[in-house]
Amino acid sequence: MSDLREWDRIIIGIDPGTNVMGYGLLGVKGKKLSMIALGVIRLSKFESHYLRLSRIFERVQGLVEQYLPDEMAIEAPFFGKNVQSMLKLGRAQGVAIAAALSRDVPITEYEPRKIKMAITGNGAASKEQLREMLRRILDIPAESLDIELDATDALGAALCHYYESSRPVQAKGPSSWKEFIARNPGRVR
Amino acid sequence: MSDLREWDRIIIGIDPGTNVMGYGLLGVKGKKLSMIALGVIRLSKFESHYLRLSRIFERVQGLVEQYLPDEMAIEAPFFGKNVQSMLKLGRAQGVAIAAALSRDVPITEYEPRKIKMAITGNGAASKEQLREMLRRILDIPAESLDIELDATDALGAALCHYYESSRPVQAKGPSSWKEFIARNPGRVR
Repeated sequence: MSDLREWDRIIIGIDPGTNVMGYGLLGVKGKKLSMIALGVIRLSKFESHYLRLSRIFERVQGLVEQYLPDEMAIEAPFFGKNVQSMLKLGRAQGVAIAAALSRDVPITEYEPRKIKMAITGNGAASKEQLREMLRRILDIPAESLDIELDATDALGAALCHYYESSRPVQAKGPSSWKEFIARNPGRVR
Repeated sequence: MSDLREWDRIIIGIDPGTNVMGYGLLGVKGKKLSMIALGVIRLSKFESHYLRLSRIFERVQGLVEQYLPDEMAIEAPFFGKNVQSMLKLGRAQGVAIAAALSRDVPITEYEPRKIKMAITGNGAASKEQLREMLRRILDIPAESLDIELDATDALGAALCHYYESSRPVQAKGPSSWKEFIARNPGRVR
């Protein structure tokens, strides 16, 4: 499917980091899910922090213009080693978010644990396990097995977003007893 | 001077935060320095984190388009209470940086301490002391005395950048004894 208009929905997944940024594009057509594109942008070759941020911005905008995704999912860890690394990570995330916002693409973020849980059923799965599951679910050919883990993390965010957003609201279950009663007036006397 | 082209140089200062973003525009004409504009953007009214980031992006781009600054200076603390607050701050900074980068405005960042030192001579000066010095240096009328401290912090970043970038390289002083000897061959026997 080389014509992007054939997809019902396209989700871009981004794993923004200060050394490597991963991206993955997921296409949805009916019940069929496919990997449209996958890759990493190496940032460590740029010494300047601003050049790195500038590159993230340009590349995310470029991917949005090229693939016209309907939504963006970003992998966003909420905890880190120290305040310095979190500030840098926050900047990388902020720049990627700005690139999507500037093209009116809605964003949802997912913690790495949540992504692993949604796809492998285990929140503590390794990146290799996540990649293997993605390969099976999306029929990615075996020769792509050596694809980089930052790229599969990003694709994982996109697939996690698909699962989360496709889940029927009813299946979530009532969040409170009061809500249960309101929803099921006949079942409580 | 309502015509922006009359300024030799315009520097925009930004103090990005997740609740309030301050901005200040400094005009330079020969040796004369003036405050062109000053203000804050309140973000706390937006519940959604993305709406806040979106607003920062749009407003910084808007200010750049309106005032056509040659450079941007941002106030950027490198330390914070915890990793959570630093991640949020990093995102706000990243979005403001992306807005400037998208309009090819070069950015320099300054720590709050450095800004206070450059302007008041005391790195531990209060925000009120910084505002008072800015008022005197830039001839800001007394009725503007109640201008908000986030706005004067941003203007302080712009003025700090002016001082730093205008300082002759020689005046920086040798950073080591070896360098001093190399620069002043006649003064050491």
